[in-house]
Amino acid sequence: MSWLDLPAGTGFGLGNLPYGVFSTPGTAPRTGVAVGDSVLDLAAATGDPVHATGSLNGFMAQGPEAWAALRRQLQEWFTDEAHRGTVEPHLLPHRDVSLHLPVEVADYVDFYSSQHHAENLGRMFRPDSPPLTPNWKHLPIGYHGRSGTVQVSGTPVVRPCGQRKAPGDDAPTFGPSLRLDIEAEVGFLVGVGSELGSAVPLAHFPQHVFGVCLVNDWSARDLQSWEYVPLGPFLGKSFLTSLSPWVVPLAALEAARVSPPARDPQPLPYLRDDEHPWGLDIELQVRLNGEALSWPPFREMYWTPAQQLAHMTVNGANLRTGDLFASGTVSGPGKHQRGSFIEMSWGGTEPIGLEDGTSRTFLDDGDVITITASAPGPDGTRIAFGEVTGRIEPAR
Amino acid sequence: MSWLDLPAGTGFGLGNLPYGVFSTPGTAPRTGVAVGDSVLDLAAATGDPVHATGSLNGFMAQGPEAWAALRRQLQEWFTDEAHRGTVEPHLLPHRDVSLHLPVEVADYVDFYSSQHHAENLGRMFRPDSPPLTPNWKHLPIGYHGRSGTVQVSGTPVVRPCGQRKAPGDDAPTFGPSLRLDIEAEVGFLVGVGSELGSAVPLAHFPQHVFGVCLVNDWSARDLQSWEYVPLGPFLGKSFLTSLSPWVVPLAALEAARVSPPARDPQPLPYLRDDEHPWGLDIELQVRLNGEALSWPPFREMYWTPAQQLAHMTVNGANLRTGDLFASGTVSGPGKHQRGSFIEMSWGGTEPIGLEDGTSRTFLDDGDVITITASAPGPDGTRIAFGEVTGRIEPAR
Repeated sequence: MSWLDLPAGTGFGLGNLPYGVFSTPGTAPRTGVAVGDSVLDLAAATGDPVHATGSLNGFMAQGPEAWAALRRQLQEWFTDEAHRGTVEPHLLPHRDVSLHLPVEVADYVDFYSSQHHAENLGRMFRPDSPPLTPNWKHLPIGYHGRSGTVQVSGTPVVRPCGQRKAPGDDAPTFGPSLRLDIEAEVGFLVGVGSELGSAVPLAHFPQHVFGVCLVNDWSARDLQSWEYVPLGPFLGKSFLTSLSPWVVPLAALEAARVSPPARDPQPLPYLRDDEHPWGLDIELQVRLNGEALSWPPFREMYWTPAQQLAHMTVNGANLRTGDLFASGTVSGPGKHQRGSFIEMSWGGTEPIGLEDGTSRTFLDDGDVITITASAPGPDGTRIAFGEVTGRIEPAR
Repeated sequence: MSWLDLPAGTGFGLGNLPYGVFSTPGTAPRTGVAVGDSVLDLAAATGDPVHATGSLNGFMAQGPEAWAALRRQLQEWFTDEAHRGTVEPHLLPHRDVSLHLPVEVADYVDFYSSQHHAENLGRMFRPDSPPLTPNWKHLPIGYHGRSGTVQVSGTPVVRPCGQRKAPGDDAPTFGPSLRLDIEAEVGFLVGVGSELGSAVPLAHFPQHVFGVCLVNDWSARDLQSWEYVPLGPFLGKSFLTSLSPWVVPLAALEAARVSPPARDPQPLPYLRDDEHPWGLDIELQVRLNGEALSWPPFREMYWTPAQQLAHMTVNGANLRTGDLFASGTVSGPGKHQRGSFIEMSWGGTEPIGLEDGTSRTFLDDGDVITITASAPGPDGTRIAFGEVTGRIEPAR
């Protein structure tokens, strides 16, 4: 259907067309679209200065009609042979480009919307209480993270230092984290902002959210467990959050929409989503040094991103272009569906055996974590999300 | 000493010279300096485009030498009659200008560093546990807030809606907050950023922090108490945070530096501040509809802003120009030194009697809260911080 020579089974077909920011040696970062093994230089191909700014924010702010119009145009360009002569000169091999953080992140909110993850953590952190706190099934719990440390995939992960205290110790000690972990998550990027003082209804989700990426919310569990009562995670999370460079448009995920799990009890009216289900059948994969360890299923998430958006603004908080909100760790019911090492190794008590004969509870220096994902696309194709990766460097 | 006709006892004398962003009808926002009852148009007076951007960020990023050089120049301009002819045309009456948010806020961190406040809240929220959590005296507890809802003083406070659950209820209900509160705080603005992966030592505080302002971190206590376990405050805080428009340079507060309270136990080495004490003798005042209710003393804060800065970056989190970190509610030991209504009314159980014969536990629609502050300046003068004010509007 396309004059492009698309690799068989590519996750970057015409049903995907994710946006990112790239550069080549000696050129300025600009917007690109991934297609097959190529990247289309959108700044050059369109001549539109909004794609030459070095971030997607300007385009994201234009709203759903502009997003749909460009998507239609791209699909026409790649389908109709008549455009080949003008488009092809602006295609670059993917392997020749450097990818940058695709957006200027405004606020970063991290949710906690996998019931399996929350129950696993609850059992470990609060063994004497029910695994879910009483509020968990009434609202999507979330908190603000540090947007200044959201970085693009590939950014080195310097092992953080900080305070931790073992249960038997009298006082905390200081040093490099001994329980460095990942959180495999899916992130949603806000394109169109909203007005301070007004809630955004759940049904308006596709009017505000531009696209979807992968997030690794690196976590130092020892720092986190000592600091997090009563005001929540802070330094245990704020040293780095990695983002995949390709932003999959919401429009690419129509075939991936599924009904979310049944909710019991029924949530309050502003969170009811019977008419606007935004479960998404995204399958994640977590690899350690190349070895696949886990396949977290996003379709199992108890709260959807549309519910998260409605909740986040129900108090009148406004949205801004570039706001990022992430799902929270994606974990399914199975042992090989967990999105963090603290769950996979059950708090460090059950080491994970690896193919090379070693084992892990948490991450070692030199370890490389790569998270990928795919989802159903149109006509039986698959949508790929690219990857978010990072290598652990020793503490400084 | 000045050719300016400064009002007797002004808090905006030559020892202060705070920066802000102002406009007059039909003109673009630009940087100004408050002096006496006037504002100096810095963009016009200096001709430097960095002061014409509509935020202080560009100037803040230039660093301590540039800050000191401009301060010396301003003091010379206002002292030496020879400059009168060139400077005076750029002075505008303060009452004729509109003031804007002085900075583009990057990340916003809110600490919790008043021992009196933390103990009061602990007694109310967790009556069955010791008032301070075990970590409190080992690290300055903090969390990230929503930078997109940091607004300038005077922004209307729309009463937020959300979920709350009374202890006896089976399920949460939805509606306007019934326990709308303030938090009187002092905020610190980062001028010079730092490198990802490297900690900023406590001693480097004046190399990074540009200035100081007042913060009202509006809080919906009923939303907060239902949502905050286990990941901390979210919607109970994220609807609005108000900032005073004048940023007092750190250099103006030399005479206000005091030793902080003695710490027991001794904190870990990266938090030791014997050689760099940054206690500040700032006296806040909280007024409700013009009536002064409370005088929170900032000098009582257990953790100083220099310790907060060191802690916030000890895990390698970088700083960015425009980062705002606030002290947490300033409360002293006395009943009339509390910086929130939940403390003043002891969780709503002891209504506060007002001069007009009414009383309050939390805020009513139409109420106006104004927080002001002053500190010792050079030669027996006082440094004023201007004010942060807001009027409660009914829920939408």
